[in-house]
Amino acid sequence: MGGTTEFFEIETTASQESFDISDRVKDVVARSGIARGLCQVIVLHSTCAIVLNETADPNIGKDVLRALGEVFPERDDWLHNLKDDNAASHLRASVLGPSEVIPIVDGELLLGKWQEVWLFEFDGPRARRVAVHLVEG
Amino acid sequence: MGGTTEFFEIETTASQESFDISDRVKDVVARSGIARGLCQVIVLHSTCAIVLNETADPNIGKDVLRALGEVFPERDDWLHNLKDDNAASHLRASVLGPSEVIPIVDGELLLGKWQEVWLFEFDGPRARRVAVHLVEG
Amino acid sequence: MGGTTEFFEIETTASQESFDISDRVKDVVARSGIARGLCQVIVLHSTCAIVLNETADPNIGKDVLRALGEVFPERDDWLHNLKDDNAASHLRASVLGPSEVIPIVDGELLLGKWQEVWLFEFDGPRARRVAVHLVEG
Repeated sequence: MGGTTEFFEIETTASQESFDISDRVKDVVARSGIARGLCQVIVLHSTCAIVLNETADPNIGKDVLRALGEVFPERDDWLHNLKDDNAASHLRASVLGPSEVIPIVDGELLLGKWQEVWLFEFDGPRARRVAVHLVEG
Repeated sequence: MGGTTEFFEIETTASQESFDISDRVKDVVARSGIARGLCQVIVLHSTCAIVLNETADPNIGKDVLRALGEVFPERDDWLHNLKDDNAASHLRASVLGPSEVIPIVDGELLLGKWQEVWLFEFDGPRARRVAVHLVEG
Repeated sequence: MGGTTEFFEIETTASQESFDISDRVKDVVARSGIARGLCQVIVLHSTCAIVLNETADPNIGKDVLRALGEVFPERDDWLHNLKDDNAASHLRASVLGPSEVIPIVDGELLLGKWQEVWLFEFDGPRARRVAVHLVEG
């Protein structure tokens, strides 16, 4: 069994932010020697998300943050705010989801020319832990 | 091959509701004896969703239901309502998605401290069938 | 290892459109001879999405397109529009996501009675490439 799981941390620097983490994911795949299988990228927090989209223009990340901020705004009457004051962050993260699965073919991620791996932060700044979990098959 | 697939049912009790189903998923993983691989949780209906987020405060589920209810409201002019009167339920479920994949490492689900598995009901009350599908690797 | 990856193309015919691609995915699974594992369907573009929902009424696809069009409208001030004029397409695709994973059990996709595989186009018409990536296990 050639499966492997590696972890890395991202120190986010603002309350909301987007990062291209493609290179770190590709490094794990390259080092694993796995020729074929699945690569799952999961952020181990409930106010962050992993997204596959274009990062060649980083403004796409900013547009996503702005759009979700308007659709799921901060509000005094979110029930979770009675406890933790970050309900809107949970909402935005829930809609995007904490994980993506990517095919591995011929030892590389199978993605389109304009698809890269984003980490979205909705409740920073914090240290965020990401797992890259590879399954051969 | 140690793969296994188990099913369970949830009887929902309201038109919209959220449930923490983490324990049922963890039971399937523990009984499988699988040390490493992937766990897919999928609800076999198109007006429900599976979400990974914090359930320690159940109000997060209520906030998600309310937010999606406002963003994708019931309306007379959804085209699907000509047939079935639950278009808004399909919309909300489509945005969250019916399934999540979770890594299995050392015989356990790999999730963050504040990540659990939610089932969301958008068109209840009904009996809802969930599959937990495990692949070793 | 019985894993396999196949590709097909869809020629979309409008700027926004939804397609039931279930039969093409099921064909790949049937031809593979894989009895058990995972089937990932991924569209290799960042302004399209793959969704599991009901296609028996194609109006559900139209309602999803309309709803996302209203929630994430075309606007002059999306930052990405300085470069490419399709920011809203990226937003809508990001929320739905480019891929779905489906269990394979007894040689078939494990889906509910009302669950099928949709391709959503948000920036057509174009030729869109879809990968069906199967892992045995």
